[in-house]
Amino acid sequence: MRYYPQPMGKLINQLSRLPGIGPKTAQRLAFYILRLNPSEVRELSQSMIDAREKTKYCSVCNNLTEKDPCDFCSSPERDHNLICVVESPKDVIAMERTGEYKGLYHVLHGSISPIDGIGPEDIKIRNLLPRLKEGVKEVIVATDPNAEGDATAMYLARLIKPLGVKVTRIAHGLPVGGDLEYADEVTLSKALEGRREM
Amino acid sequence: MRYYPQPMGKLINQLSRLPGIGPKTAQRLAFYILRLNPSEVRELSQSMIDAREKTKYCSVCNNLTEKDPCDFCSSPERDHNLICVVESPKDVIAMERTGEYKGLYHVLHGSISPIDGIGPEDIKIRNLLPRLKEGVKEVIVATDPNAEGDATAMYLARLIKPLGVKVTRIAHGLPVGGDLEYADEVTLSKALEGRREM
Repeated sequence: MRYYPQPMGKLINQLSRLPGIGPKTAQRLAFYILRLNPSEVRELSQSMIDAREKTKYCSVCNNLTEKDPCDFCSSPERDHNLICVVESPKDVIAMERTGEYKGLYHVLHGSISPIDGIGPEDIKIRNLLPRLKEGVKEVIVATDPNAEGDATAMYLARLIKPLGVKVTRIAHGLPVGGDLEYADEVTLSKALEGRREM
Repeated sequence: MRYYPQPMGKLINQLSRLPGIGPKTAQRLAFYILRLNPSEVRELSQSMIDAREKTKYCSVCNNLTEKDPCDFCSSPERDHNLICVVESPKDVIAMERTGEYKGLYHVLHGSISPIDGIGPEDIKIRNLLPRLKEGVKEVIVATDPNAEGDATAMYLARLIKPLGVKVTRIAHGLPVGGDLEYADEVTLSKALEGRREM
């Protein structure tokens, strides 16, 4: 005898394949879905299909978008002479949350990691170069502050500088609100190295 | 400017309403869905709708089912003279996993809890009584081993015994594989009380 009615069993099975969702959480979610209104379930269900089918990648900057080119690349309000290079669409969101950045983006969808066999040709660097011919003054490399992000930044700097475009890297340093005493020594060295006159 | 394309934003928003799913997990799930094949997304989506729309409650035992009466209640292979009373459909699954029980079930969908204002009329006790007139010999009360489960068991025993039906309660005791030294004193007292001759 099956344990759950077939549709419930199937849903639990499918949910437990999602990342970070174990069998217990899948069961809890399935019971939750059972208690929702049918219209709410249809809405959630449709949202998944819509997100999957209506979300594309911008052919210019590789960011997620509904239309191509994306809202950033086609906006006259953004500074088209400034490109911030990030590893993933989530990083674009993080940058936008600061409210400080008004330029464009370029999403690499990864970082160079020789140890994992990921070279420059495996991430979306190729369509960055044509963008630099159109009067771009500065490329801000905002890849992650780790070995892969730094390697990617070094590679990009060596690639872009000869084209006469300024390449900058976002600062490494102490996180705001942090405690100097608990900072790791690498971060602290970087913070010292990046000190500025007051 | 919106942070995510509208369909992604909507999906993240909807996912983060699910129990135990915070904004970060919702974002991670949404990105995962974006990388699935469209056919896989449609299948997951349809599973939710199917689970919600095809799963009913058995009119006899209140368990989850696709057809009414459920597979348990309509099976000639189960012992129809034995009814195990549990709090939720999840408890039915737990009982079935033992492979030891061959009788029928009765799902209360809750337990008596005066402190939360839940009385006997708020859980599905009413349709248990008509079932006891049909030659049932024993009702096993397998409500949770806590204050509410015990109170519900007491209530049921007082209700059912006068009808001449045997009422039993599953044993409280030490969990198998546990360590006596770490057992809490209430469990240990119950284990002592329920000792059996070897």
